[in-house]
Amino acid sequence: MSRKPGFQNGFFKKDILSVDQFDRDGLAYIFTRTDEMSEMVETVGACDLLHGYTLACVFYEPSTRTSASFIAAMERLGGNVIPITQGIQYSSVSKGESLVDTIITLEQYSDVIVLRHPEIGSVAKTAKYSGVPVINAGDGAGEHPTQALLDLYTIRKELGSLNGLRVAMVGDLRNGRTVHSLTKLLMNYDISLRLVSPDVLRLPLGMMNELIDKGIDVRETDRVEDVIKDVDVLYVTRIQKERFTDMAQYEEVKNYFEITPEVMANAKDKMVVMHPLPRVGEIHYTVDKDPRAAYFRQVKNGMYVRMALLAAVLGQA
Amino acid sequence: MSRKPGFQNGFFKKDILSVDQFDRDGLAYIFTRTDEMSEMVETVGACDLLHGYTLACVFYEPSTRTSASFIAAMERLGGNVIPITQGIQYSSVSKGESLVDTIITLEQYSDVIVLRHPEIGSVAKTAKYSGVPVINAGDGAGEHPTQALLDLYTIRKELGSLNGLRVAMVGDLRNGRTVHSLTKLLMNYDISLRLVSPDVLRLPLGMMNELIDKGIDVRETDRVEDVIKDVDVLYVTRIQKERFTDMAQYEEVKNYFEITPEVMANAKDKMVVMHPLPRVGEIHYTVDKDPRAAYFRQVKNGMYVRMALLAAVLGQA
Amino acid sequence: MSRKPGFQNGFFKKDILSVDQFDRDGLAYIFTRTDEMSEMVETVGACDLLHGYTLACVFYEPSTRTSASFIAAMERLGGNVIPITQGIQYSSVSKGESLVDTIITLEQYSDVIVLRHPEIGSVAKTAKYSGVPVINAGDGAGEHPTQALLDLYTIRKELGSLNGLRVAMVGDLRNGRTVHSLTKLLMNYDISLRLVSPDVLRLPLGMMNELIDKGIDVRETDRVEDVIKDVDVLYVTRIQKERFTDMAQYEEVKNYFEITPEVMANAKDKMVVMHPLPRVGEIHYTVDKDPRAAYFRQVKNGMYVRMALLAAVLGQA
Repeated sequence: MSRKPGFQNGFFKKDILSVDQFDRDGLAYIFTRTDEMSEMVETVGACDLLHGYTLACVFYEPSTRTSASFIAAMERLGGNVIPITQGIQYSSVSKGESLVDTIITLEQYSDVIVLRHPEIGSVAKTAKYSGVPVINAGDGAGEHPTQALLDLYTIRKELGSLNGLRVAMVGDLRNGRTVHSLTKLLMNYDISLRLVSPDVLRLPLGMMNELIDKGIDVRETDRVEDVIKDVDVLYVTRIQKERFTDMAQYEEVKNYFEITPEVMANAKDKMVVMHPLPRVGEIHYTVDKDPRAAYFRQVKNGMYVRMALLAAVLGQA
Repeated sequence: MSRKPGFQNGFFKKDILSVDQFDRDGLAYIFTRTDEMSEMVETVGACDLLHGYTLACVFYEPSTRTSASFIAAMERLGGNVIPITQGIQYSSVSKGESLVDTIITLEQYSDVIVLRHPEIGSVAKTAKYSGVPVINAGDGAGEHPTQALLDLYTIRKELGSLNGLRVAMVGDLRNGRTVHSLTKLLMNYDISLRLVSPDVLRLPLGMMNELIDKGIDVRETDRVEDVIKDVDVLYVTRIQKERFTDMAQYEEVKNYFEITPEVMANAKDKMVVMHPLPRVGEIHYTVDKDPRAAYFRQVKNGMYVRMALLAAVLGQA
Repeated sequence: MSRKPGFQNGFFKKDILSVDQFDRDGLAYIFTRTDEMSEMVETVGACDLLHGYTLACVFYEPSTRTSASFIAAMERLGGNVIPITQGIQYSSVSKGESLVDTIITLEQYSDVIVLRHPEIGSVAKTAKYSGVPVINAGDGAGEHPTQALLDLYTIRKELGSLNGLRVAMVGDLRNGRTVHSLTKLLMNYDISLRLVSPDVLRLPLGMMNELIDKGIDVRETDRVEDVIKDVDVLYVTRIQKERFTDMAQYEEVKNYFEITPEVMANAKDKMVVMHPLPRVGEIHYTVDKDPRAAYFRQVKNGMYVRMALLAAVLGQA
């Protein structure tokens, strides 16, 4: 339904389904646009770039952080939003309608669709049937590309570059979707990686081998203390209870690390602590005031990145 | 609360409660306006016709399709929306507030109210107390006039006229609210009707007699094959499980027909297949690519028709 | 995130947490602005005063009346809304995120936050951590300042003044949050007070003593008939079942009074009946047509007062 002549930018009319779609040029384009969005919001709050466009924001599992981010992004660009962020499961779905039919229906009202669904692969499968671009806002244990993009953008913005950095991933590296996606994106740059996790939550073998094959400097440890002194990025993740089948194992590892002011005392002056949120104890609240604590600026960057993506797929970038 | 001088169009300040309110002139007026809305959206996406107006979109039972349609309609006209499409039953209602009080309350914030409620007659009853126009978005087994209007508009748009057509209604003709409403509207035109249903789901006696009294050419059958060759419209409906008290009876009839490419091979080149959606097996997915499959265009027309109605009742048509 | 130069008005960048923040000057300022908002809406419906600003409307317990009022208020001022009025408890919260973290997250997307939470004190506690103004939309049995402001504004608008009035509070005066807050605000003016309640629901001792210490003319009774003849305001409240632990006691008092046309026949010609709503039997429906029944105008005033507050805290007043 888009009517303005679209600007060819590599993402125009494309679905955003996976981090695999983004090479260095694509990332550079999106991040330049993200910088502009940030500048616009900080100076005037909103603009009319997407006036006349409607976003259907469809969440089959609630996620306040992500849905609110997309809604704010679209509205600050002057576009309209159909918010379907709650209860869709009680509606058409309960009458037996397929996900594909629901999405084709919503496509009739909208120019772009943001979709979150608990089933891995469901968003990509559905996007094939949609005549308007679909942005994946998370498909279970699958992909959540906008999270990885905002993570990468935050590193670039906070530290000025994406090359020559030492990045530590901390927490559940086995199940953490955000860790896997960000790691994939980081492979595009000249970085070294430190992996910090309890033994049962180490990075999957396949991913580890990929890193080694790419010649990336990577080391594993189970103690934050081993890496804190010389990392530029400490990317902390939650130990997700819902991923464990063995609760005894969860209890054993759930509190195995905590970032405190004492831990931060050993970190470099110029570095950042990041977290995809929500946190449930991995970072103590007293760290929040540390200027190196970037996790809430990271949230704000999420809105800016999503603004850039919405504009790009609608050809208004 | 409307402040601009309203344009007298026959629907200004009126509630939209039933298809019985629409005669041929009224339908012609709304459909002309609907054509304009379609043209506007396809060319510029949105306008400011209803700037300064607020819609309270109140759904006591969730319906993603209908609520999203009204929200998109209002927003594309530049109006504001208060979306109350979920959970209202857990709110004031749980404190014992009456529907009438809730609606009078929302009337204070808004210029027009769209109301869906599971109880037959509830919307009309409530509308009496409202100082702003109320649009019925479905009251249980009662009326759902905007669905019937979009159905009729789709036939007109797809086939160029509403006269001289042969329309087949297929499925649950006993309980199907959309079938009854569309049939009423079709009685305004020169059509012939084919009714296709299992024996236990035939059109109610009263309605059948009304058709006969009007001199409409009507025939009943229980096989799609009997009618497919020479119908202009095949209006397919779902066998609604929730209407059956006898589950054995439901199991018997639930799969009694399915529109497939094989069935369509016998249809005319210029005809349309319609469905109010959701479907749960009545039309096979392989039919979707058939240019005669109009059910998703029908959904889009729903947004246009609702835009026309919102503008009309607010006197901005 | 506010970017326009803010206008210093005493509320700019401030949280709105309690009625205690409002002295006579502050009230006069807000009410003057409220008059302007009312005038604007009645003449043009909406404006662009808050264009570029985003409100996060966050309700941890549903309240259609209050959330719809804030949403309509922000939209009529040209601002954007992130509506989180349902289901937030199933989202981040279910993953163990703290209220503070959720609010700091939403702060990244927005310029002002409206927060309702069932726990007393929670809104004030959370507001401390927010970099954008937080407006308390009710914290359990605690405060609900915008309700008290709209109540007071309604008295002023309906009767022309706030001095020299006799106000009767009727119903559950022990637990009624709105009664306590309005009473606090009324202490700023020269009024006399009549308290009408069953014995078990009398105004708390501390509050009673405060009134007496202030030298306010106050009397208690358990019969509406004793006060109806010479009050200017009859402020009626619901006996809230959810506040009772002893259901036998609730059953005893629940129907102890009802405002009917017969009761109103004894009231002055110029007076108003108010109610914070919802009602469940305290005021008979036949009273609605009485011009002295102000409870639905009171609802509309709520939208205007909230518009004034939103503009004030964003410095656009």
